[in-house]
Amino acid sequence: MNFAGLRIAVVGGDRREQEIARCAAAEGGTVRSFGFPWPTSGIEGVLQANSAEEALEDADIALFPIPGIAPDGALFAPSWPDRIVPNREMMASMRNPAHVILGWADANLKGHCEALGITIHEYEWDQDLMLLRGPAIVEGMLRVIIENTDITIHRARVCMVGQGTIGTLATRALVGLGARVHVAARNRVQRATAYAAGAEPHELTELTTVLPTSDILISSVPAQIVDRNLLETMNPRALLIDLAAPPGGIDRDAAQELGLKFIWARGLGSRAPITVGRSQWSGIRRRVVDIVGARREASALT
Amino acid sequence: MNFAGLRIAVVGGDRREQEIARCAAAEGGTVRSFGFPWPTSGIEGVLQANSAEEALEDADIALFPIPGIAPDGALFAPSWPDRIVPNREMMASMRNPAHVILGWADANLKGHCEALGITIHEYEWDQDLMLLRGPAIVEGMLRVIIENTDITIHRARVCMVGQGTIGTLATRALVGLGARVHVAARNRVQRATAYAAGAEPHELTELTTVLPTSDILISSVPAQIVDRNLLETMNPRALLIDLAAPPGGIDRDAAQELGLKFIWARGLGSRAPITVGRSQWSGIRRRVVDIVGARREASALT
Amino acid sequence: MNFAGLRIAVVGGDRREQEIARCAAAEGGTVRSFGFPWPTSGIEGVLQANSAEEALEDADIALFPIPGIAPDGALFAPSWPDRIVPNREMMASMRNPAHVILGWADANLKGHCEALGITIHEYEWDQDLMLLRGPAIVEGMLRVIIENTDITIHRARVCMVGQGTIGTLATRALVGLGARVHVAARNRVQRATAYAAGAEPHELTELTTVLPTSDILISSVPAQIVDRNLLETMNPRALLIDLAAPPGGIDRDAAQELGLKFIWARGLGSRAPITVGRSQWSGIRRRVVDIVGARREASALT
Amino acid sequence: MNFAGLRIAVVGGDRREQEIARCAAAEGGTVRSFGFPWPTSGIEGVLQANSAEEALEDADIALFPIPGIAPDGALFAPSWPDRIVPNREMMASMRNPAHVILGWADANLKGHCEALGITIHEYEWDQDLMLLRGPAIVEGMLRVIIENTDITIHRARVCMVGQGTIGTLATRALVGLGARVHVAARNRVQRATAYAAGAEPHELTELTTVLPTSDILISSVPAQIVDRNLLETMNPRALLIDLAAPPGGIDRDAAQELGLKFIWARGLGSRAPITVGRSQWSGIRRRVVDIVGARREASALT
Repeated sequence: MNFAGLRIAVVGGDRREQEIARCAAAEGGTVRSFGFPWPTSGIEGVLQANSAEEALEDADIALFPIPGIAPDGALFAPSWPDRIVPNREMMASMRNPAHVILGWADANLKGHCEALGITIHEYEWDQDLMLLRGPAIVEGMLRVIIENTDITIHRARVCMVGQGTIGTLATRALVGLGARVHVAARNRVQRATAYAAGAEPHELTELTTVLPTSDILISSVPAQIVDRNLLETMNPRALLIDLAAPPGGIDRDAAQELGLKFIWARGLGSRAPITVGRSQWSGIRRRVVDIVGARREASALT
Repeated sequence: MNFAGLRIAVVGGDRREQEIARCAAAEGGTVRSFGFPWPTSGIEGVLQANSAEEALEDADIALFPIPGIAPDGALFAPSWPDRIVPNREMMASMRNPAHVILGWADANLKGHCEALGITIHEYEWDQDLMLLRGPAIVEGMLRVIIENTDITIHRARVCMVGQGTIGTLATRALVGLGARVHVAARNRVQRATAYAAGAEPHELTELTTVLPTSDILISSVPAQIVDRNLLETMNPRALLIDLAAPPGGIDRDAAQELGLKFIWARGLGSRAPITVGRSQWSGIRRRVVDIVGARREASALT
Repeated sequence: MNFAGLRIAVVGGDRREQEIARCAAAEGGTVRSFGFPWPTSGIEGVLQANSAEEALEDADIALFPIPGIAPDGALFAPSWPDRIVPNREMMASMRNPAHVILGWADANLKGHCEALGITIHEYEWDQDLMLLRGPAIVEGMLRVIIENTDITIHRARVCMVGQGTIGTLATRALVGLGARVHVAARNRVQRATAYAAGAEPHELTELTTVLPTSDILISSVPAQIVDRNLLETMNPRALLIDLAAPPGGIDRDAAQELGLKFIWARGLGSRAPITVGRSQWSGIRRRVVDIVGARREASALT
Repeated sequence: MNFAGLRIAVVGGDRREQEIARCAAAEGGTVRSFGFPWPTSGIEGVLQANSAEEALEDADIALFPIPGIAPDGALFAPSWPDRIVPNREMMASMRNPAHVILGWADANLKGHCEALGITIHEYEWDQDLMLLRGPAIVEGMLRVIIENTDITIHRARVCMVGQGTIGTLATRALVGLGARVHVAARNRVQRATAYAAGAEPHELTELTTVLPTSDILISSVPAQIVDRNLLETMNPRALLIDLAAPPGGIDRDAAQELGLKFIWARGLGSRAPITVGRSQWSGIRRRVVDIVGARREASALT
């Protein structure tokens, strides 16, 4: 399928969006972009707009960033000087029918789109995309560990709290590098996964005995499980890494008050922007194909 | 929780049941057994019954084997000279209330139990137990490969069809030993899992190009995907292994007519009977605890 | 370089020699063979002789088997009904100058060759060939373990005595499959190698504390280190594997008297005969090239 | 053996020396230190001298840093404002007999020591110490790769030139993380090592075909093999890492002129200073034990 004739706006994001815009243009789309770092050599087939409005005007499809939307409604655009908030006017300038494809939408954006008849497609929870960007996230985590420890991962005692998609890949990588990994998880399937991966499985109640001898604590659960009481049992030289979205799984304030080294390792998916942008494109592309297919079918019927 | 006073019958099975019976007795149960190979040194605390009837008489709980029931209704008992079919009379001799814990029950057994008020607990689909016996199954598969090939796993081209719980563990082990693993799966999450595990993912339609250069084909899907047409494209020296339950994923008859080496690697879970028996006991135990707990609660209320 | 015109005899051996003979013929040699299992479909370009004498007559180069020569002077030829002892007469029928390429030669063969002016080329100690057949040996060892244990390699406690070329590869494979590997070695570089590979290094004196809790003992040292005293401390269910050439590293008689399961895993290199035959050919080929090159140079000078 | 009564000077170095000084004091030595970063909480049992002279005065043993001596004769002391050159006077203030233990000594230091009767012990080439600090070096290399690439290590095409002690460990780690590793080495044992480790071995002449498709080039050989001609064939987005001591294996000037991203990854052993300091101490300790033992033996004879 060729995307010729399709007008695509890529607004906000980081270096991953360079690759996504490049892919969209390479498949025939007419691509205008705004709000992500622009490479000095440009991106073949992609125009740089002067504003979000200009990028979105007359677009069939808007691609917004992977990490979604900040509490104030602004698109994720860490390198951009100004906040980019998709407002009613901006969205209204898109063609009709229009589509937004993004990680996840907030109430504000949903409201505008509903009012304007724009369809929203969220892919934050696509497990295949999470797996495809998994190696990048794991490598980003390895970098955080290596930068922040005085001991090697090899033979370090690591405690992982949670064992979902990313936690499982992280366990595999750490075991492979020689760490002694202990996994605490509420869910028995997650514990069995850890066992099969060569880690030592534990119920959450066992954290009281696992944490005091851990060199590194990594949490990937969104619920706060490692509270002040548990943190007080830890080795003061331990490194604490939270991979989860706020509020995360580690009591950050308590960690800092206790003088523990705490790192909120968010946005690790931006490591390896070419690899990750390309894999995200596979998920975005799927949705674009569906949109184009439905449109062609519809026009064939009329 | 102690199982003192609980009468448990272990009927049918293989060497895994030795360990299951031993665990049941070690936790305080009164255990009678029949229908699995008896170790010369006996099993501490376990009595050997002279018949299935004798084992089941007055039992609170019957433990039947992991691989379930044959088409003729007989319990899995490969080393036993006679078929052991749990009939109405046999089951009726159990206490009231009684419970059967087993892999899965057939219509016949279900009928008897319903008529007699016996509760059936199946654990065939417990994903945690599947993961816990996963390493044993994978090692059994490695043995089958090593015994049946003239080349090393190291650098062999392996095509895996399907990538579920066991398929994923198998991929990890083969990649770790240096095989070049290609995974064909219909489901995109399975393909992404294979990608993250270091294998090359493919859609099923790509089997036409993957199979001709494969040294080893391993299928773990229950639906027949590798048909005669695909088999005809294979290297005549290739090894074919089907890990799935009948009818399996490879056309066995066609494979044999084409002179291909085909192995139906069923019951690999019986490799490492101590490890596997013990892990299955963790799933059985959970159910026994629930039964005992409910019973105590009930008697406390009366 | 083409080996056209070169007469090569392949005498003795196992299925690896099928591949070696095939390779020799494929590069242009005139190959006659005797004393190894003959495939029903033959070997392209290779003639089957009726006796060792016939194979060797007028040959420029004799290829004798990898595992060398038995104490009685017979070539390794496990599937052959009669012993094949290379005697003076037999060797004298080769061309002049002639060459023998083999694992290693005994005093008898050396004597004949010296008297007859035949050059011997031994490759038993080529470290690159040992590494190339390493994966086959390791996989053969995995098979021996899987066939002879009731527990999984995954999480088994393995004690390796010695950490040379093959021991190191074995450690890597076992760690990768989830075993907890303890390595005892006299040499500190070997212990550091084990450490880097994710195993726990020990001095030999520590065997007294490591062995009692080991499930599997694997020795790859040629000197007898595991004596009766050490064996007496072992778990009676442990599996003992000796990978070394006689007399090996484990007191075999004591092991058997103590009722321990002992396996002398010799000749694991014959697993995967195609892979191993081909890798050995790379070492043999190198020597043939040197022989042919020297001959051409010599004839160019005359 | 206790080091009580032994006066040890630790001069120069980085955070590894903190751990080395701590270990020396923990075993009973009287330790004075100078020239490495001093932790705010101090080091138990270690005194901080005001000058190198003060640290060395009356010392039995001087510990100088791991990476040896700069071209101008200064000890490695990257965080120290002034150069620390061990001159004749400074060394003369040590006790008699005295010993210097260090990575390697230059002609200048050797001259002073010879004149003063001080014994030099070099451990730069201890292969066991290299293996023990191997994981730290490999992890440091992983960090350099992750920080400097837009793609993941997973599925990246990596070309390693050379396959010695560190190269082998690096290959294992990269293969384990999913990279496709190609190893070019002159030595056939090194190539076979790479093969067994799951990499693709190549002769050096094959670099002309391997480099154009490589994403990452890592050299660990001390001789310049990757010259301008080879560099010209590389992908302009490739990352080049030289792990070897000057002059290294990659033509650095040509790389920079060609606009290639080149990183000289020296001193990776300083990552994980606690782990590495402790492992180096094992090598230093061995020599101290020998010195003390010889001294006691000598005094017992007199």
